[in-house]
Amino acid sequence: MQTLELRPPYLIFVGDENRLSYAKTGKGIVDWRRSLCAGQLRTSTQAVDLGLVDMDVTEAAHQGVGSLVIGTAPVGGDIPAQWWPILYQAARAGLDIVSGLHTRLGDNAELRQFAEQSGARLIDVRNPPETLPVGTGRKRSGLRLLTVGTDCALGKKYTALQLEKDLRAAGFAADFRASGQTGIMLAGQGIPIDCVVADFISGAAELLSPDNDPRHWDVIEGQGGIFHPGYAAVSHGLLLGSQPDAFVVCHQPGRSHIEGWPGFPLPRIQEVIDRTLQIGHLTNPNIRCVGISINTSGLDDASSRLLMEEIADQHGLPCVDPLRGGTAAIVAQL
Amino acid sequence: MQTLELRPPYLIFVGDENRLSYAKTGKGIVDWRRSLCAGQLRTSTQAVDLGLVDMDVTEAAHQGVGSLVIGTAPVGGDIPAQWWPILYQAARAGLDIVSGLHTRLGDNAELRQFAEQSGARLIDVRNPPETLPVGTGRKRSGLRLLTVGTDCALGKKYTALQLEKDLRAAGFAADFRASGQTGIMLAGQGIPIDCVVADFISGAAELLSPDNDPRHWDVIEGQGGIFHPGYAAVSHGLLLGSQPDAFVVCHQPGRSHIEGWPGFPLPRIQEVIDRTLQIGHLTNPNIRCVGISINTSGLDDASSRLLMEEIADQHGLPCVDPLRGGTAAIVAQL
Repeated sequence: MQTLELRPPYLIFVGDENRLSYAKTGKGIVDWRRSLCAGQLRTSTQAVDLGLVDMDVTEAAHQGVGSLVIGTAPVGGDIPAQWWPILYQAARAGLDIVSGLHTRLGDNAELRQFAEQSGARLIDVRNPPETLPVGTGRKRSGLRLLTVGTDCALGKKYTALQLEKDLRAAGFAADFRASGQTGIMLAGQGIPIDCVVADFISGAAELLSPDNDPRHWDVIEGQGGIFHPGYAAVSHGLLLGSQPDAFVVCHQPGRSHIEGWPGFPLPRIQEVIDRTLQIGHLTNPNIRCVGISINTSGLDDASSRLLMEEIADQHGLPCVDPLRGGTAAIVAQL
Repeated sequence: MQTLELRPPYLIFVGDENRLSYAKTGKGIVDWRRSLCAGQLRTSTQAVDLGLVDMDVTEAAHQGVGSLVIGTAPVGGDIPAQWWPILYQAARAGLDIVSGLHTRLGDNAELRQFAEQSGARLIDVRNPPETLPVGTGRKRSGLRLLTVGTDCALGKKYTALQLEKDLRAAGFAADFRASGQTGIMLAGQGIPIDCVVADFISGAAELLSPDNDPRHWDVIEGQGGIFHPGYAAVSHGLLLGSQPDAFVVCHQPGRSHIEGWPGFPLPRIQEVIDRTLQIGHLTNPNIRCVGISINTSGLDDASSRLLMEEIADQHGLPCVDPLRGGTAAIVAQL
């Protein structure tokens, strides 16, 4: 039993996508894991430039590229017809194909056949490993930090990635652990926790951060929100299986309600801290909150600084915006 | 989007099983839903007698039986070789086949072919419906009661079934709602909540007890335990999606630890009440605990009565053993 594992280096497929916001998976990989990227495949000169060497499949195969990673998300989430010939070519050349889109790669018989012939793998990062264990609750060695949130889509992944970077800069051994599809594509491994069968949520989370050196930090990407009417169960299982020693609450000011659930007011940061402590205590009695991460993307520098000072004072915890000054203040707590 | 639905009346397959404890699914169906049972199919005179008319497949088809329901659980959970000819015969005769065993019926190509030809359905009650929604948290009409527990396998299903019976006896409209495979076979419908994909746990739970008359009670079978290191996430999602007005805590005295998880002491009843209130509040602010159900199967009448009085006093709530005097004291609270 193991997590998904991607094979580097990567050829990032951009296609003819000319909007950066639709190529954010590719951009994320370049931002956070540039050393794993061999090049980009663009089918139009107007396409987004991720700052990598332009490369076609033949050249990539020649250079020993391991995987073609689809770095853009077309509207609707399906694979457009004009992409398939390129994916066929890559599979025939033995490159693994990695996708986070709705269309399952393996549902295309032609692609499947090319992959079987060359030994290439078709990896849908939405598909969890086939065999997963039930959570045991057994205490694992090493240290763990989990990012949790007042809601979805407000910075849990980037907070975890920045914490990994800042922990390493401070001399710690640390690894980002991906629990969602984009995170897996950035990290090259992980388990899409929201896609596993209910009985195995905490077991999958246990696999995600295995035993490690006593002073090694796993920084685990959180999912959902413990007060989320749709996804709280996922957050609960991930929390139990992660058995975090430390957690960071991620929040975006200005949200009044759970996004997409207008009947549900956003929980207060303190409520998320309290509930996370209560639930997390079951598998790690030493769990503690070590900081707050604020997504201040809507604010200017001065307002964002003021807001973070206020929140820090209010909770007696370091408060950071990871993309605006890093997470060193939190790392200092560890 | 809907729950699994079985087609009555049933022919209960007993085979040559001569131990009642291995035929408990069949016995449960007869105990709780006798009116849905047309007969039993025994392949040996030594086999368990469930008190139904003995019937072979030909006779069952002639009498308009809807489903052959496998009522025994062989050691290992796989279908023994000598059962297949009978299942083939049933599928050819147009009877749906219903199984809760590990072996997937549809993995047998011959059986699949017979079923396709006759229009019979092969129903593995471990397989949830294919399309499930994400939980919305929208308040539904009607009243709901959920059974929760200090652990697994201590009476949540039977408590719910007895509550349905006693509610009906007291003049309420009430329906048992099954969330596990045995419950589904007893109830003829439901969703195996522990088998759904993580993102859809609370959404599946919402499907399980749809809008209903304002005074109608759905009595929902609980799963797992909110302090269970393996299954708490399932319990959390089921609680949110059920949005219960009332819940009953099920407990078995004498257990010191979560069964199978020796490192985890059994939570106290009061802890389960408090945590269930906290979490359940999100989707139903009026949630309340209406009673405690004790599995006193290990005790004599006098000790069991004493224990239940003690627990009732301690918590200020009615305390019952559903299989030893019913749940009327709880129904009186509703």
